[in-house]
Order: sequence, then C-alpha cells, then structure tokens
Amino acid sequence: MQEDKGALPPKETFSEWYNDILWQAEIMDVRYPVKGGVYVWYPHGFAMRKATYAILRELLDKDHDETLFPMLIPENEFMKEAEHIKGFEEEVYWVTHGGGTSELDVPLALRPTSETAIYPPMYALWVRSHADLPIKLYQIVNTFRYETKHTRPLIRLREITSFKEAHTVHATWEEAEAQVNDAVDLYRTFYDRLCVPVIVSRRPEWDKFPGADYTLATDVVMPDGKTLQVGTAHHLGDHFSRTFDITYEDAQGEQQLAYQTCYGISERCIAALISTHGDDKGLVLPPAVAPVQIAIVPIIIKKREEEVRAAAEALETELKEAGYRVKTDFRSLRPGAKYYHWEMRGGVPLRIEIGPRDIDNGVVMTVTRLGEKQTVARDALLPGIQAVMDAFTETLKERAEQKVQEQIVPASSLDEAREAAGKGVAVIPWCGCKECATAIETAIDVSVLGTDVQSKYVADTEGTCIICGKPARPAIIARTY
Amino acid sequence: MQEDKGALPPKETFSEWYNDILWQAEIMDVRYPVKGGVYVWYPHGFAMRKATYAILRELLDKDHDETLFPMLIPENEFMKEAEHIKGFEEEVYWVTHGGGTSELDVPLALRPTSETAIYPPMYALWVRSHADLPIKLYQIVNTFRYETKHTRPLIRLREITSFKEAHTVHATWEEAEAQVNDAVDLYRTFYDRLCVPVIVSRRPEWDKFPGADYTLATDVVMPDGKTLQVGTAHHLGDHFSRTFDITYEDAQGEQQLAYQTCYGISERCIAALISTHGDDKGLVLPPAVAPVQIAIVPIIIKKREEEVRAAAEALETELKEAGYRVKTDFRSLRPGAKYYHWEMRGGVPLRIEIGPRDIDNGVVMTVTRLGEKQTVARDALLPGIQAVMDAFTETLKERAEQKVQEQIVPASSLDEAREAAGKGVAVIPWCGCKECATAIETAIDVSVLGTDVQSKYVADTEGTCIICGKPARPAIIARTY
Repeated sequence: MQEDKGALPPKETFSEWYNDILWQAEIMDVRYPVKGGVYVWYPHGFAMRKATYAILRELLDKDHDETLFPMLIPENEFMKEAEHIKGFEEEVYWVTHGGGTSELDVPLALRPTSETAIYPPMYALWVRSHADLPIKLYQIVNTFRYETKHTRPLIRLREITSFKEAHTVHATWEEAEAQVNDAVDLYRTFYDRLCVPVIVSRRPEWDKFPGADYTLATDVVMPDGKTLQVGTAHHLGDHFSRTFDITYEDAQGEQQLAYQTCYGISERCIAALISTHGDDKGLVLPPAVAPVQIAIVPIIIKKREEEVRAAAEALETELKEAGYRVKTDFRSLRPGAKYYHWEMRGGVPLRIEIGPRDIDNGVVMTVTRLGEKQTVARDALLPGIQAVMDAFTETLKERAEQKVQEQIVPASSLDEAREAAGKGVAVIPWCGCKECATAIETAIDVSVLGTDVQSKYVADTEGTCIICGKPARPAIIARTY
Repeated sequence: MQEDKGALPPKETFSEWYNDILWQAEIMDVRYPVKGGVYVWYPHGFAMRKATYAILRELLDKDHDETLFPMLIPENEFMKEAEHIKGFEEEVYWVTHGGGTSELDVPLALRPTSETAIYPPMYALWVRSHADLPIKLYQIVNTFRYETKHTRPLIRLREITSFKEAHTVHATWEEAEAQVNDAVDLYRTFYDRLCVPVIVSRRPEWDKFPGADYTLATDVVMPDGKTLQVGTAHHLGDHFSRTFDITYEDAQGEQQLAYQTCYGISERCIAALISTHGDDKGLVLPPAVAPVQIAIVPIIIKKREEEVRAAAEALETELKEAGYRVKTDFRSLRPGAKYYHWEMRGGVPLRIEIGPRDIDNGVVMTVTRLGEKQTVARDALLPGIQAVMDAFTETLKERAEQKVQEQIVPASSLDEAREAAGKGVAVIPWCGCKECATAIETAIDVSVLGTDVQSKYVADTEGTCIICGKPARPAIIARTY
C-alpha cells in the first residue's frame, strides 16, 4: 500500500479535495467493483471509525442497551406499514434466491433501516407491561439503499456500513418527546467531541421520516456551503404501535398503545469530521478520534544516535502508559518526509521532535498539526503534553465555529437568500406553508431544511415570509448533499 | 421483557437445556420470522458477545489491522475461483433486484465468506512490492449461508452475525505456514481466556477449506459429546494469488506470487462458552466475559436500612473504580429471588451480600456462582475480591478440563471406537487414507476430525489402523455439530 499518490488538490476545490483525501489518507478505497456506493475501509480509515464510534457508544451506553437484529426482513413484514414502505420501497435490495438457483418462498429485503425488523416481530412480543418501559435499544449495523442518485464515499452509499440506529418505546407521547430531545442533546455532545459544529432544526412536514409525527435533524455545513444531514431523531407517535399492535398494560390493568422514537447516525459523521478539519496539506484530526495522537520523530545525528533512540523510546513508553496513542517513526527517511507522512496521511494532532539539543536542554519540541510549536519540559512531560492537546482541541473548535459562523447568513428577500445560499446557509423568515417553500426551492435551487432552529448563530426573531409576507419564523435553507 | 419463563431442563438433556437457556438467560430470541437460522441478540446476550469479542480484538490488534470490506460480492468476482465456488455455491443468497422490481445487471452474492470480496478486487491492487508484506487484516462482519441442514442458534445460522475473518498475505509458503500456527496459538489463547478447552487438529484432505493447501481446526467437546468446530485456520498456498494475480516485486526486482492464509471464528465461540460452563441452575460465566461480574445484594432490615444501603453503594463505587462490572440489586424482592435472577439470567461470577452483621464485623460475604462462600475483609476489599475472582476462573478451567478429559477416550478397535464416540471423542490409530475413514464414518456414524492432534489428552503414539492394519498415527473421531 506504499504508492506515490501525487499532490492533494486545494481544499477550495472541495469535491476534488474530498475524493482525493479519502485516498491519500487511506480512509476508503473506492475501487471495489460494485457500481457506485460500495467501498472498502482501509485500516487507517477504520481505526478512525473505531475511535469515533467508541465515543458514540460511550454516550449511548449511559442509558441504552446495545443489541443486534437480523439484516434480512421478510417481504410480508416489510410491507405491513404503508407510509413507511412508501418512503423506502424504491431503495430496497431484494434477495430472491438462495443456494444456487432456488427461489425463496418469501423475498427478503436487505434492511434499509430496521423499524420493520424490530417492531412487528420483537417489540410487539417484548412490550407487555408498563414495567417493561421505557425500552431503549440501539445497534450499529450495515444497511442498504439502492441509490439512484450520485453516490459518494461516506456520504451517499449503497452499503451504509456504520448505521447506528436507536429504537425506544415509551408509555406516553410526552416521554417519547423528551427522548427525542435527549437524542438530539446526545448528538450535539457527540459532535462537540469531534469539534464539529452542528445546526439542529425541525424538518418540514414533507421531509420528515416516513411514519413519524415529526423529525429533528442535525446538519453540518460543509466547506463548499452545502449542508450534510448527519443525524436525525424521529418522534414516531403511536404510528407503528397502532399498526403492529405494540401495547402495554398500564398500572390500572388497561391496555394502552405505546409511543416510539428512533434516531440514527451513519458514517456521514466521518465525512463531516474529515471535511470540517482537513486543510490543503491533508487530514487534520481532533485528538479524541485520531488513530495516532502523537508521532514521535527522533532527530538522529550519527554521533549520538543511541542516546536519541533511547530517549525517543522512553518518551513513547511514558506517553503510552498515560493512555495516548503514540507511534515513533524510526524509518530512515529525512525528517521532512516524516512530517509530510504524519500530516497528510495521519492527520496526527501532535508531533514531538526529540534530538540531541532537546536532550541537553531537558525538553521536547511539540508541533501541532496546525504548526504551533512549543517546548515542553521533559520532567513535566504529561501535564505539558495534555495542555498542548487540550489547546489544540480548543483551536480546532474555534476554527470550525468561525468558519460556520461565516457560512450562516440572514436574508430577508429572495435575492439576499440566493446570495447567502451561494456561500452556505441562509436564514429566512418563512410562514411555514408548503407553497412558499416550493416557491423558494424552485427560485434558488435550495432545500428548506427546517424551523425551530437550534444554533447560536440563528436568532429566533419574528418576521414576514419572504414569499407571501405573512407572519413568519426563521427557517434555514441551503443546498444539500 | 419480564416474562415468567418456567424451569430450565436439566443439562443432561443438553439439546433442550441449550435452547432453553438461550431464552431464559436472554441471550437470543428465536422468534424472528425468517425460517430457521436468523435470530435476535437480546441486550444481555449482546453484552456477553461484546466482552468476548473485545478479547478477540485485543489479541488480534497486537499484529493485525482491523478493516471492513463490502458485504455484496458481484457474481463475476465470486465465480472466478472454481474450487472455492464449489465449496459455497449451494449456500449463497443472491440479491437480484434493487428498487422495487428492477433487475440488477449483475446479481450480488451476500458474502458467505470474504475471499472473493478481498483478494481479486483489493489485494491484487494493494500488493505490489515485498515492502508491502506481510499484510494482516481482519474484519468482524455478518455473513450469510443458505443452510439446508437443521439450524440452531449461535451454531448453524443463515445470518452469522459475528464472523471474525482474518486474511494475510506473505512472501513465502513458510511464512504463511508460520502465520497459520500463530493463528492457532491465538485461538488457543482466546479460548483459554474463556476457560474453554479446545482440541486442535489437521482436517483430512477432503474436509479442508475450499481452495486451501491445508486446514487446522479448533474443536470443542460439547456436553453431549458431540464436537463443535469453533475456529479454523487455512494455509491457502498460492491458490488464490495464482487465480487473482496477487504478485509482488521481490528485492531482486522479480515478480513473485504471494502466499496467503485466512482464519475465522464465529459466534460459535459464545455457544461453546455457554455450553461448557452452564449448569442445571442456568448460566455460568467466567469473569473475563461476564457482562456483570459482581452482583451486590444488600440484606436490608428495617432498623438499619439507610446504613446498609450506604454500605452497598460505597462497595459498588469502590469496585467500579477498580474496573469491575458491578450491579447492586436494590429491588424489593426477597434475597432468594435475587440470587435466582443473578444466577439464572446473569451467570454472574460473584455475588456479594452485605447486611448489618457484615458491617459490624467489617467484612463482606462473597458467594461464587458455584456456591463457594468466603468472607472478605472490608479494609482489604480489592485484593480479597481479586483473589476470589482468580480462584473462580481457575475452578472453571479445572472443571472444564476435567470434563473434557473424561470425554476423550482412546480406542483400538471399531467397537471400542463406537463406545468412546458415544461419550465424546475417540482417539484411534488411522492410516490416513480416505477408504478407511469412510469405513469408520459409515460403521459408527462419526466424522474423522483430524490428525496431528494438539491436545494434552492425546498422545502422539504409533499404532496400526483400526480398519486396514497398516501403520497409523492417532486421529480423532466424533459426532459433530
């Protein structure tokens, strides 16, 4: 896997940069021979995924249980819920044959999402009494969509390899509502750990999940100003429980319909992570998810080779024992080539250089991925390194916040909105009706993302709809992935 | 999920016991509506799987990289390697349609195993120079087999949800051979951590992996004496590299064929774990993989309720901080009902009881899952508990070893072999030829598992074949799952 991969295009040309960095930094290999949307995770990409999903699991495990449901959904179960099917039937892969050429009695769907694998067969059996509630389960699985749109690694896939889907059951509509809010809070915490700013909003009625009362969504503004939906939480009301007979006996002995929610995140979180932080030189990763957090580069001069080597090894041992993910680069390359490797390929947050002069001075030289240099006293190594790491995490957050702040622009007319949406997200007053939304979407080729916007850059002010002039609240519009 | 589940059948009636314990201990729910071999992991079962696979990952991560390849394999890639296909074509599920009713240009196989998803499309591109070797990758994925035999949870599945498959590439046949041995050592270490004794042997020619030079297999003797194959390692020689053109440039600049191995473990490891240790009362789990390692049961009497409650909480905190997985059972049930719950459902290695008398005496009472009681001084809690845990792990190992030792019986005639195979594994002298194996297998309804047996209970003695009388080496035979 040691190929010369040429130069990375500048990040300004985002689409080229994105495709190239996945390859250069060995995140995904797109040469797998299924047309579009089926890709291979390189070990380096997978290590990043592992660190990222470890955070997601940590947050979920506080009050969810992890579980695993089957991937194959029988056609008859899948077809039970009309509205839900309508939302997915055009995207389903069907298994029709097993064992050579024998046709299956019942075709099996590859799960596009697991409501029909979980609710009718299992939740309908498991939910019996109010004492069983709430149920809060999640799974991290591969799901499949027969995409007809343009596919793109990590973003629009035929095999989504890393779909985290949570499915909860509650006694009341209000408890389910609280759960949706908890889910959104959890996602916000998750993205904060990745140093990725997100905007939460309530999707318009026509853009909610098939079979939901409402949908809250989490969007990231990508470097080219288009938004990427990176998490959704759905209040399902009693929509599925009514169809699938998911009822519980309440404290008075009466049968009641249960209320449900579901919420999901896919490997789009990795796409957001890479796109938010990367630069013209390559990958930039927050310490929380970097497969290698510290690269030690010994500066070796012949006369004192053994001494430098021993110092580098001692450094590595001490940092590893403190819990850091560390690699020491003893390869016989020029230091410059090593820096290039760790920056481009690794996105390594911190490089430590140690040479004879550093040993003499009782220090190590630290250089962050953004080029900030600082010496750290060798005899106070751990607090010194942690301080540099924490500052680097803060820098990444601020840098990302600053960018997104520039990308969210208020607009009070169609013309202003068009200009704003050219750069990123336009915030417009919108009356809430579908006709006005269609008028906006047609006029300037954007999507109305949602209302009830949760973002510190969007003020909840009253206004008048930019189409019909009726009283309006802020909505966000943008070009989307 | 709080159903009254009735009494567990005794373990003597192993097949009933096995099916029932999966349900009673909430490991798998078998009521999923796909006929046979597709099941649901309950949270408790999944937690056990998680702890078990964490050990597998820990062992592999020392010198493998984790990765992820696509689940869908195009028919034309899948069909490239004749011998390999022959081994699997009867078991493959085919996706033929996508998006409603439109037929795919190329049918897609659900991976039954990933050689053809990895070698022709990716390894053929990735392996270029000797500097790229060795490559040692693994993935943990769902795989699919259209089973026509009787399915059984965790053992014979249509969706194998937890297939760990490793795929390595080497410069020479000898290096690949060493890798196969390393793989077997790794599996032995893994099963040792689960306190499950295994027997390693070399499968007969006709039972090796389709496309392998040879196969080493790891078997567990189940309580009913039948063996369960719980891990295999295959030397693939240059079989696949020749077909798929996986070559590297050696140090002299010459193109050379690469040599390959692959080795796998599925959720059968969980079946072996449950079956080896469980008893008439329910689940028994080694501390290494128990989702809950310690259940604290406060013995509450009204007068000193607050005090006992506080003592239990302090205990939990201290044990959790030391890294144990702990639950305190404050439910208002009688202690006996709680013991039953933690034993049956949880297989919890250690229960700690703490009541007023224990507080007065400065101790806690520990009871292992096998009923061994011991008091531990409160002011030396952690070393005390660790000693009890370690002793319990040793007890489980010895108990399992003792059982398997009884199940492995030498035999020097067909009659003796028949009797031995009724109880477990018969060790017989066998000349190695297929005719004699067929004669044995036909006469007493067993399988010849293999030769070159690695087990401390099988001596490598010379003998004469029980069929033809020619010089022979020990082989193991048994009824198999």
